[in-house]
Amino acid sequence: MYFFRNDYSVGCHPAVLEALSKANPEYVVGYGMDPYCKKAADLIRELCAAPNADVQFMIGGTQTNFTAIAAFLRPWESVITPVSGHVNGHEAGAVEATGHKLLQAHTGANGKLSPDAIKAFVEECRDIHLTKPKLVYISDATETGGVYSKAELTALSQCCKENDLLLFLDGARLGCALVSQHNDLTLPDLAELTDAFYIGGTKNGAMMGEALVITNPQLQGDFFRIKKQLGAVLAKGWLLGIQFQALLTDGLYFKLARHAVEMAQYLQGGLRNLGIPMMVDSPTNQIFPIVPNTLLPHLDELCAYEVWGKADDEHTIVRFVTSFATPMESVEGLLADLKDLT
Amino acid sequence: MYFFRNDYSVGCHPAVLEALSKANPEYVVGYGMDPYCKKAADLIRELCAAPNADVQFMIGGTQTNFTAIAAFLRPWESVITPVSGHVNGHEAGAVEATGHKLLQAHTGANGKLSPDAIKAFVEECRDIHLTKPKLVYISDATETGGVYSKAELTALSQCCKENDLLLFLDGARLGCALVSQHNDLTLPDLAELTDAFYIGGTKNGAMMGEALVITNPQLQGDFFRIKKQLGAVLAKGWLLGIQFQALLTDGLYFKLARHAVEMAQYLQGGLRNLGIPMMVDSPTNQIFPIVPNTLLPHLDELCAYEVWGKADDEHTIVRFVTSFATPMESVEGLLADLKDLT
Amino acid sequence: MYFFRNDYSVGCHPAVLEALSKANPEYVVGYGMDPYCKKAADLIRELCAAPNADVQFMIGGTQTNFTAIAAFLRPWESVITPVSGHVNGHEAGAVEATGHKLLQAHTGANGKLSPDAIKAFVEECRDIHLTKPKLVYISDATETGGVYSKAELTALSQCCKENDLLLFLDGARLGCALVSQHNDLTLPDLAELTDAFYIGGTKNGAMMGEALVITNPQLQGDFFRIKKQLGAVLAKGWLLGIQFQALLTDGLYFKLARHAVEMAQYLQGGLRNLGIPMMVDSPTNQIFPIVPNTLLPHLDELCAYEVWGKADDEHTIVRFVTSFATPMESVEGLLADLKDLT
Amino acid sequence: MYFFRNDYSVGCHPAVLEALSKANPEYVVGYGMDPYCKKAADLIRELCAAPNADVQFMIGGTQTNFTAIAAFLRPWESVITPVSGHVNGHEAGAVEATGHKLLQAHTGANGKLSPDAIKAFVEECRDIHLTKPKLVYISDATETGGVYSKAELTALSQCCKENDLLLFLDGARLGCALVSQHNDLTLPDLAELTDAFYIGGTKNGAMMGEALVITNPQLQGDFFRIKKQLGAVLAKGWLLGIQFQALLTDGLYFKLARHAVEMAQYLQGGLRNLGIPMMVDSPTNQIFPIVPNTLLPHLDELCAYEVWGKADDEHTIVRFVTSFATPMESVEGLLADLKDLT
Repeated sequence: MYFFRNDYSVGCHPAVLEALSKANPEYVVGYGMDPYCKKAADLIRELCAAPNADVQFMIGGTQTNFTAIAAFLRPWESVITPVSGHVNGHEAGAVEATGHKLLQAHTGANGKLSPDAIKAFVEECRDIHLTKPKLVYISDATETGGVYSKAELTALSQCCKENDLLLFLDGARLGCALVSQHNDLTLPDLAELTDAFYIGGTKNGAMMGEALVITNPQLQGDFFRIKKQLGAVLAKGWLLGIQFQALLTDGLYFKLARHAVEMAQYLQGGLRNLGIPMMVDSPTNQIFPIVPNTLLPHLDELCAYEVWGKADDEHTIVRFVTSFATPMESVEGLLADLKDLT
Repeated sequence: MYFFRNDYSVGCHPAVLEALSKANPEYVVGYGMDPYCKKAADLIRELCAAPNADVQFMIGGTQTNFTAIAAFLRPWESVITPVSGHVNGHEAGAVEATGHKLLQAHTGANGKLSPDAIKAFVEECRDIHLTKPKLVYISDATETGGVYSKAELTALSQCCKENDLLLFLDGARLGCALVSQHNDLTLPDLAELTDAFYIGGTKNGAMMGEALVITNPQLQGDFFRIKKQLGAVLAKGWLLGIQFQALLTDGLYFKLARHAVEMAQYLQGGLRNLGIPMMVDSPTNQIFPIVPNTLLPHLDELCAYEVWGKADDEHTIVRFVTSFATPMESVEGLLADLKDLT
Repeated sequence: MYFFRNDYSVGCHPAVLEALSKANPEYVVGYGMDPYCKKAADLIRELCAAPNADVQFMIGGTQTNFTAIAAFLRPWESVITPVSGHVNGHEAGAVEATGHKLLQAHTGANGKLSPDAIKAFVEECRDIHLTKPKLVYISDATETGGVYSKAELTALSQCCKENDLLLFLDGARLGCALVSQHNDLTLPDLAELTDAFYIGGTKNGAMMGEALVITNPQLQGDFFRIKKQLGAVLAKGWLLGIQFQALLTDGLYFKLARHAVEMAQYLQGGLRNLGIPMMVDSPTNQIFPIVPNTLLPHLDELCAYEVWGKADDEHTIVRFVTSFATPMESVEGLLADLKDLT
Repeated sequence: MYFFRNDYSVGCHPAVLEALSKANPEYVVGYGMDPYCKKAADLIRELCAAPNADVQFMIGGTQTNFTAIAAFLRPWESVITPVSGHVNGHEAGAVEATGHKLLQAHTGANGKLSPDAIKAFVEECRDIHLTKPKLVYISDATETGGVYSKAELTALSQCCKENDLLLFLDGARLGCALVSQHNDLTLPDLAELTDAFYIGGTKNGAMMGEALVITNPQLQGDFFRIKKQLGAVLAKGWLLGIQFQALLTDGLYFKLARHAVEMAQYLQGGLRNLGIPMMVDSPTNQIFPIVPNTLLPHLDELCAYEVWGKADDEHTIVRFVTSFATPMESVEGLLADLKDLT
């Protein structure tokens, strides 16, 4: 059975495991104050050309999102997010649990936010009986595989600056976004255009871990205390530093992302050749084929995947996700099996 | 240099690492819904003789404490804790950040809570202008190495039942408590006498992880949603299940704790033989010698440890902690070096 | 200048002021534990045919909404509300500030929620990575003058029961709803069909005050403690009891509402006769004319009102609100002046 | 029966009622944006010699305390308060409900905080695993009638500045403090020495209302939004402005406080003449006699008062409170009746 359910259902890349194993017997100072974390943070600052960035290693994506938002905002300030944003649709109300309202912007199928949607909320919220929008949440790639261009991110960044808004970018799938076709954004661009963003490890080769990069100096300072308060400080914090050090050495992180994207794109192309259309044109490691309902029982036998939603009475949108660990044999195998079916 | 700073400054036990390595290439379903977690939970239910307990794997201790408390309480309900309780003194206001007041009870040097202290708060809070005490937080062992006897825990449990209070036991160092001399508590006792407690992995052989055992059926049910909301769901949740499965197989967990306690007790005895008194008589893996200030520079050269507080103008209380990884050579070496100094 | 801006811009009805003045020199026990509150609560229980209801006097509407919601829900539970609901659009994120997510349902122009919208959220949230919908928030009348029929409220109530949801009704403008044409709901109906609702005083004759009626016995009990915690306990609580006692004696409350509604309906009819259409057909004390933009400068000179939104490039939706204090002279005067203009 | 239970059990001063009655039929803009509030705020700024202060009218004391604290602090910041502080002992966990920890300092019987107690918490919390103390809460007068001298408040203010702490003064009973014997503080002193403080109306002549004076410009700005969010915006906000305008005209506020204090001091002197000692020497409108338990049944018949606590097995501390409305006849009557008893 081929596995395309998601990109966090297998352990870590062997190089990461090796690094963890090697360091296992060492005595290391706790809570992320160790040399591994320091080294990994230095590497990230260098890759981002952001020598003054504060790098904080977190355990997971939901945790990173709400901890950063809670750290950055005052109680009456709110978050502008696409309706489809992970903070809105997949995190059990985590941001609201820290007291902040989500202002939910409608977007196209690719889930990308536009400056106009931001401005509409800013206008509406000039009324002081409402919350004050203060942070714009986006993700790259989005939940439906949308990737921002440099021009788009620059426009968002400028809109935020003009409206006294912080720009926060969820990078749970940043690797795949940055290696996708037509992408023209780099880590230094992200560091320059956002106030904070993170480099996702969980979905790209790590056991767990996200590296939060806080570039806006006004948001730096007491972050450790709120990280502790919200349960995001790992006692053996060096485990995160070791993993990011391994992933960021010799470009392994991007190599893994490139493989994941190649597998997904090969699969997307193959499915199209079989006459299966896509909900959205995704250049990332997630693709969204629209399949006849009659195909679903066969898919269930062939592979692990997710039902995304209903297309029409006779068609269903499904999601296939690849990862660093997806073998070409799975992609070719699925395509061959599907070809036999049609 | 000998290492006695704490019990979470080294990786995991080799058997744990081996189990993680072996499972690394497998595809496993995420978020703790996997067979490893199921198996580990079954093992725990069996060891606790609590077939209906809900077992939730958490990443760290602070996270477990505030997530459980937030899940169990209504907004106007408060927590009775020893002043020295970890929730009060070491967690950056994590419980308050979920909205709950801590009622801080004074205790003796061993940090153990008494029914009288509980009753005093219950009496005071009959005034409905105050919060309603609803949960008693204790830890076994306490922050200063105190261990509850079965009689003591039974008395606390009864006091809680009589006053409509939940009893929650922080077991970050539960292993060392349960294997300590004179201890007469068992896991089934804990399951019977508390509403929830946890079995700490981080400080006893795991990379990370605490196993929360919720025995009170009224507290079970929607726990996963709040766990997700508070960032405590690990995407690759099986990593926790694997570790607990390894630790709970063939009594490894208790074997590791026994080693830690033996090392600490050997050290405590040796120090006493050198004429060094203790702040408190601790039967666990943490000991608290009172040393002349003139000894501190020598200690700094010899070993990693922590300053706990001032005893008097000429003496300082220090803390030495052992773990599953502490070699007898370190203990003997430190004692020999200290003997040479005196 | 005629005043139609809103229904909370004038003091209280003279009978209320008289009652307050009369009791002013008396010594009364504080915090709402007084005979006036007790009497008013008894009156409300009687009018609602709900002898076991818990009646809590609150100071304002926003406060009542979030205090009730915070009291009724567990942290992971969320609220289904119309997008246009007061809790979503006018309360500065008050509900989110207590930690709860708002699930925002789209409705027609009248702002009334349907069982289908509720069921859609219930279905979506079977996914335990999301919040659990637990309370449905509606208001009667709605923000745009919509009034629920008994059949509609019964259907909502049944839908809530079938889906383990609480039904909470914001009655800030309940008086006007209950006296509006075609209304077939009574206070006993509300007590029977909802789990809690409130009778708004601020917008119908009181200086301030809302009477929260909690009929579901499972939601009663510790309400005073959270009311205190959230700042909703008035030290001189009897001031609220006195006002509700005055309003509920001899049907004054409904008499005042009837006047407000009659004034608004007379105005609505008159405006239609002048060829001005309405955004929505409102039977309450709020009406929403669609006027040519060229009329706005004249309106600005004639009366106080609010701009509600843009209808099209040449037309604007405005809001006129009447109250117990609106004199017929104002209505007739405005209509006459407008007639002269057209 | 003489009334000495507290100072918030009678309506408002007749001049306040008259002002409210006079303005009752007027149309006024809501939410505190009205000319009455503006005028009262101007008066307060003038009396405080603080032309740039932001004055916010609030409904009650608990609400003022937690709203200000929530507005001023970041999530990881905590409050240093005397154990006996109203925020700690009488507000049902309201501050914690906004997410902030209270660091509870021990004080003498008068409840006054010292710079040393502040510094001790600052030292302890250099550990970044703890909250960061950021605000010092004091009240003048304290819960036990303590009054700060100018030298004491200056020392606290300086200590706060040196340690990056805000100084917030709860003035629920500020009037009585400022008119008490030996007091050498003025409103301009308070404005200069604190970052924010409030002038309590509820306990000194108003129906309800506290005037929060925010002098630190960095704390000003978005206060209205959080005030709205926390339910502290009164729809008919002008009711608060009218009351403070009345109280602050021709020194009525201080005249009322002076009367209350005179009554309490007369009573205190008389009780001492009868051989009854005091728990603490209070120069304010609250006194704390230590009476033989055998006297309690007689007191119960003679007057309304509160039991404060146990002195020893045979004596009880009671609390007598006077207000603007306490007649000399009550004081003399009680003293005469007690004299007859002894």
